[in-house]
Formats: sequence, C-alpha cells, structure tokens
Amino acid sequence: MVEDVSVKRVGGQWAVDACDALTGPRFSDHPDYLFRPYLGPAHLNALDQVAAWMGEAGMTTRIDSAGNLIGRYGANDQGLTRKTLIIGSHIDSVRDAGNYDGPLGVMLGIAVCAALHAAGRALPFAIDVYAFGDEEGSRFPAPMLCSRAVAGSLAPGALDVADAQGVGLAQALELNGLTLNRFVDARRDPADLLGYIEAHIEQGPVLEAEGLALGVVTAIAAQIRYAAHVTGVAGHAGTNAMSLRKDALACAAEMMLAIERIAGAGPSDLVGTVGRISAGPGAPNVVPGDVTFTIDLRAGTDEVLHPAQAAVVAELTAIAQRRGLGLHLDKTHALPPSPCDPALRAMLGRAVEAVGVPARDIVSGAGHDAMIFSRIIPSAMLFIRCKDGISHNPLESVDPADADLACRALLHVIDQLEAAHV
Amino acid sequence: MVEDVSVKRVGGQWAVDACDALTGPRFSDHPDYLFRPYLGPAHLNALDQVAAWMGEAGMTTRIDSAGNLIGRYGANDQGLTRKTLIIGSHIDSVRDAGNYDGPLGVMLGIAVCAALHAAGRALPFAIDVYAFGDEEGSRFPAPMLCSRAVAGSLAPGALDVADAQGVGLAQALELNGLTLNRFVDARRDPADLLGYIEAHIEQGPVLEAEGLALGVVTAIAAQIRYAAHVTGVAGHAGTNAMSLRKDALACAAEMMLAIERIAGAGPSDLVGTVGRISAGPGAPNVVPGDVTFTIDLRAGTDEVLHPAQAAVVAELTAIAQRRGLGLHLDKTHALPPSPCDPALRAMLGRAVEAVGVPARDIVSGAGHDAMIFSRIIPSAMLFIRCKDGISHNPLESVDPADADLACRALLHVIDQLEAAHV
Repeated sequence: MVEDVSVKRVGGQWAVDACDALTGPRFSDHPDYLFRPYLGPAHLNALDQVAAWMGEAGMTTRIDSAGNLIGRYGANDQGLTRKTLIIGSHIDSVRDAGNYDGPLGVMLGIAVCAALHAAGRALPFAIDVYAFGDEEGSRFPAPMLCSRAVAGSLAPGALDVADAQGVGLAQALELNGLTLNRFVDARRDPADLLGYIEAHIEQGPVLEAEGLALGVVTAIAAQIRYAAHVTGVAGHAGTNAMSLRKDALACAAEMMLAIERIAGAGPSDLVGTVGRISAGPGAPNVVPGDVTFTIDLRAGTDEVLHPAQAAVVAELTAIAQRRGLGLHLDKTHALPPSPCDPALRAMLGRAVEAVGVPARDIVSGAGHDAMIFSRIIPSAMLFIRCKDGISHNPLESVDPADADLACRALLHVIDQLEAAHV
Repeated sequence: MVEDVSVKRVGGQWAVDACDALTGPRFSDHPDYLFRPYLGPAHLNALDQVAAWMGEAGMTTRIDSAGNLIGRYGANDQGLTRKTLIIGSHIDSVRDAGNYDGPLGVMLGIAVCAALHAAGRALPFAIDVYAFGDEEGSRFPAPMLCSRAVAGSLAPGALDVADAQGVGLAQALELNGLTLNRFVDARRDPADLLGYIEAHIEQGPVLEAEGLALGVVTAIAAQIRYAAHVTGVAGHAGTNAMSLRKDALACAAEMMLAIERIAGAGPSDLVGTVGRISAGPGAPNVVPGDVTFTIDLRAGTDEVLHPAQAAVVAELTAIAQRRGLGLHLDKTHALPPSPCDPALRAMLGRAVEAVGVPARDIVSGAGHDAMIFSRIIPSAMLFIRCKDGISHNPLESVDPADADLACRALLHVIDQLEAAHV
C-alpha cells in the first residue's frame, strides 16, 4: 500500500494519501486504532517510511539527537544567504488518533520540496523539513519536547520524565541508539534560520463554517495544565454511610463540573478540559480514596486565561475544603500566547490569496510546535479546513483539494522568500 | 508466638490475640501482606491452628467436604432438642487484608465454647463453630461458596470456577484430599439447626461515631450494581468550544454527583458508590468521548432501595438527554435484602443490653455468610466496633474490650437459648 504513495505524484492529494498510508499496522502501536507515541516501534517505522519519501523528493535525510527526522532540500551555491527555512510538524499521535494532525504538515513540506525538485529549482536558502518526534506528549508528560530541543528552549529538568510504564526518557532514547545527554545537541542556532512555517489542520469548525479552505494563524492560544490529586479515605462501599464519607471521586466530580462551568461562562476562545482521570483503589465495592485528573485551560489571551485559571484554583480549593478532602494542584505546563511573525504572516496571507482563497485570520486554540519557534525566529502557521472540526479522533478528514491549495500556497511563500533573498 | 495464645485465657482479648497470631508467615500466602485465599497453603495451616484451639476449648473437630472446619461443643444427653446452633464466620481473607474481618467471628465462637467448657456447662443443644473456607471470593470468583454448600443453596454451575492461575475448584479440592462431587455433602439439614449467629467487625464508622461497642444487625442490605457507559464525542481540548462539546466525562461527573445526592438524601442505610471509572481516549488534551463507571447501590430494605434505584436511573437518563450524549446502563448484580430473624435478633438485643451496651439496630451494608443462612434458618449478626470503620486493609483494628463485650453477649444469647429450650 505504502509503495503506491509515490512522491512523484506530488501535491495535496499525495500529502493526504501519504498520511493515510502512515496508519497501517506497522505505523501504530495499538492493534485497534492509531497510536504512534514518541520512540515507540510505530514511530521508528514511520521514520523509515517518511525518510524514504524525503529521499524520493530529492532531499538528504538525517535523524537528530532528539529523534527528529530532518529532510534537507539544499541551497544553491550562489545563494546570498546560507540560512535555512524550517517547514515542520510532528509525526507522533495521540491515542486513537486521526490521520492528519501532525503528519499532514510534514507531508506538505515534502510535497513542496518534491515540486521544487521536479522543477529543478535551486534556492538561495535551504529548506529543512522536520518530522518532530514528540508534540502531543502522549507518551511522556512533556509535549513538544522535540521542537524545544531544536529551539534550545528545554527547561531545566524537562528531560527527567518517564512514561506510564515507568520507562524513563533516557532508557527510551538508549533503546533507539540515542543518549539523553546528547538530546540538547538537536538545537539549531537561530542565526542560521530564516524562519519556521507549519501547515496544520484547523482542528476546529471555523473555516468549514465560513466555506474557506485555508486560514492564516495570528497567534496560538495561551495554555495552562494542572495535574490534580484529590485525597480522601477509601472504604467499604456498603458500610460507609454517605454523611461520613471522604469520597475522592465524588469530590473530583464536583470539581470537574466547576471547571466546565467556569470555562463555559467565558468568551468562546476560553476552554477547560479534564481529559484523563484515574480513581483508586478502583473496585466497584470500594469508595475511592485517591483520584488524579488533568486540567487543561486555554484562551487566546492572558487577559482571558488568567482570571479563569484563578477561578478554577479558588473553586477547586473551596470544594476540597468544604468536603474535608486533600487537594494538590501541580502546574505541569504553562505557555503564554504565541503571536505569529507579522512579516511571515503577511507573506502567507498573500500566498493564500494568490491561490484564490480570501485570507482569513484565525487564532489557534491548539498548541503547535510553531509556538516554540515563535520565541526565537519568525514563525507562521497555515490552517487547513478539516471536516466537522474533528481532530484527535479517527473521524479526522481533510479534502485533498484543500491540501493542494495549501501546497500551492506554501510554494508561493517560497517564491516570495526567494524574491526577497536573491 | 501462636503457642502463647492459650484458649485457657478465654474472652475477647484471647479472640483478638488469636486473630493476630493467625497472620504469621505460615498463615499468609504472600510474603509482604496478609492474603489467605481458600484452599491455599496458608488456609490449610490456619485450619490446623484453629482446630488445635478448638480442641483446647473442649470441642471435637472435623473438616467437611467443602473444606470448612467445624468445632463441635456437644449437647448433653438430657437435652429436649438434638438441634445445633451454628456460630460461624470465615477464615479466608482478601488480598492485603486486616486481621479481623472473618477470623474474629470464628475466634469469638471458640471463646464462647471455651468459656462454657471451663464452666463445665452442658447444654440442651450442640454448638457448631464453623470456620468457613471461602467468603471473600478472593481466589475463585464465587464468594460465600462454602456457606452456600452448608446451606444447600449452591446455584447450578456454581462449582465450575477457576482461579486467576487457571486452577479449577475441582483440582484445588483434590490437592487437599477433597473431591468436587462430594462438595455438596457439606450441606446441613435445616431441620437439625437451631439457628445461625455471626459476630463480625462492623467494617463501617457508625458504631464508633456513636460511641457504641456493639450493634445488632437488622438485615444485610439489598444490593444493585450497574455498569454505566456514557458515549459522547472525543475532540481536541483546545479547539472545541465549550458550547459545542459532547464531553463524556463532564456528563459522567454530573451523573456521579446525582448518585451522591440521591443516596445522601435517603435514610442512613442507603448508600451509593461509584468505585471504578475509566475515561477514553484518556489524554490531557483530548475531550473524553467514552466513559464507563460502576454504580453500587445498597439499602436495608427494598422499600428504600427501589425508589433510589429508580431515581438514579431517571436522573442519569435525564442528564444524558439534556447533554445530548448516549447512556447505557447494564445491571450486573442484584441481591435482595437478607433480614435477620426477629426472635434471634431480639435475643441478641437483650444480650447486648445485658453487657451494658444500648442495643443499636444497624443495617449491614456488606455481605456476610449470614445472608446465606437467613434464607433457611433463623439467623442473626452481632457487629463489633472497629477503628475508623476501616476493613479490607492492614489498618483494621478492634479494641479487645469490645471483643470481650461481644463474647459476653454471645454467652448471654446461649443462656437465653438454654432457658428457652430446657
């Protein structure tokens, strides 16, 4: 199947087909659905396959010390700049994922280079297409670990993480011939980089509602995550009167409803989610004594996010106190809003209009590797319409015609960058 | 150590000490904690030890065809009845158990007979103290298998069970010189039995909260269990506006609070518990699309349980409909209430008052062997206060003074039965 997805047939249809091809049994670590966590067998198989496609597209490939696959479309010798443009996205996935969140951006980068290669184009700058190994954080509790390595913005202790089976990042790297203390060597010097562009499905319903194939991202939303731990008292489900219980799960239920209520009362870009929960000891006839759950809060601006965050913390604390249970909130993740670079964003807007789509500005509610790069180099994002706004779900769907418009828009940006640099 | 626990020193202190002695390495099948499953090495060692104590207490001992140990304190020749009173409980345990759930009732039975023996008492009826081999169902998925055998109430196919290692009941019996097809011979003819009395730790906090050492059980609670499955739509936590979500976990949270509210609004014997929950796909950045959780509802009477059950079903259905999510409720378990015998219960009430404790009626939210016997002969249960209401946990704790009051109350019941029968 995969062999049919030849890069010779470049463009949006190829990019969508390649994403679909990357969902076979070799490319998922779960038999029943797509799950491609960082450094798992499926990830490694995907690296081989994507590297092969990069080769067909006239690119040289390497895997860096953080496990990122990089396909390079080289600069010509006469270029006035030796700089490199990064076109990047990730090839890891959430559990029970769709086909396009992440891989589509990588495939569109390859398709762009394949088109340049087919046309015999030599550019005054190099293009590095990055297939980041981890963006979702679905294995280690540390999303965007790999783009942070490239950007040189890993926080102290960021690498001291382990997966749900207790396998540490160091061990997972070693199993794949990499070493933890070389992880930071994946860093690129910002002085060598022209900019960062990422194409990604919208993962929301806005473009579809407005009948637009593409959108130009203005900023990526600010984001805060907590791990919440509620401590009650486990006991026999039959013998503990309701009034005497310290039920950690009932307490957590009240907290989850509070989070839903606070987020629902804010502007439409404010969202709050409890995506993971576990209750112990976990028997039908035992009152739960311990519950852990995650909290994910996002908004387009800090002005919206910070009051919501304060309200959640205050409300959860009040619920725990009223019930006489323990609550520990551990902030696991915090990201300020990430505005895109005005100049690169304007180029992307012109490119979108050049392929016949009105340039629509849009805020990204999802985090992306672009927000890591926006801190160090000019960065921009192109959104592609997806069906029903669905993502992180096998129902994810992209019209190949939309992907093709994206491919052409990216090529138009390359043209603009070439014109600006030659 | 065990040798110090002489039955000559009868009473509650002895009963507690004997339970503690029954937790040494020989009496547990796990090196790190107490685990004494049916027909394991620890169970067999416990049979030897308990039989020795029974012998010291002037009882004759035998092991029946279901592996129950029976110590008999014989009737006098002049008795007007040849009937037998059973004092029973179990000596198997859950994994990582406490010392008293089960064994204390056996030891108190022995202590009662030891006291009668020391006083040279000859009764007009016999006492059989049963140490049931299985009540917890912690080895085979069939709790109260051994008391069901004695009561003659084994369901068809009940013996066709295997443990987690695939060892069938037939094989486990054979390894211990017993045979499956003789299992049912453990049955006693109800016409020969005077009644059944079981002393047990409360496993709840009610007696402790009220400052009472003992409680007289009115009934063992009726019980209904459901597996609930809520179906929503999974989606990206950042891009799905709150108003458009079908969040299965937020929906389940509202349902859990409804269960807590309905159970809390009923009489004190009504309890409702969600002990196990799982939310899928289970990532911090994905809105949950599927949630399953268990519901355990109990009450002393069907008059209390059934309206609560109906309210829970109606409320959960309404919540799912209002949110536009799917709900499937699968009833996995249903047990009618097991009322104690009014006459025997009244005797126990008088006995408790005779030892200076106000007779406090209490519903048993937990299942016990007594509920098997309540179907065929007059049965009653005496609850003993336990520390913090904790059971199924190494922190289980009983005050020897409370156990002594229980011992004296049981002796008072014997006196009343003697007076009624001589």
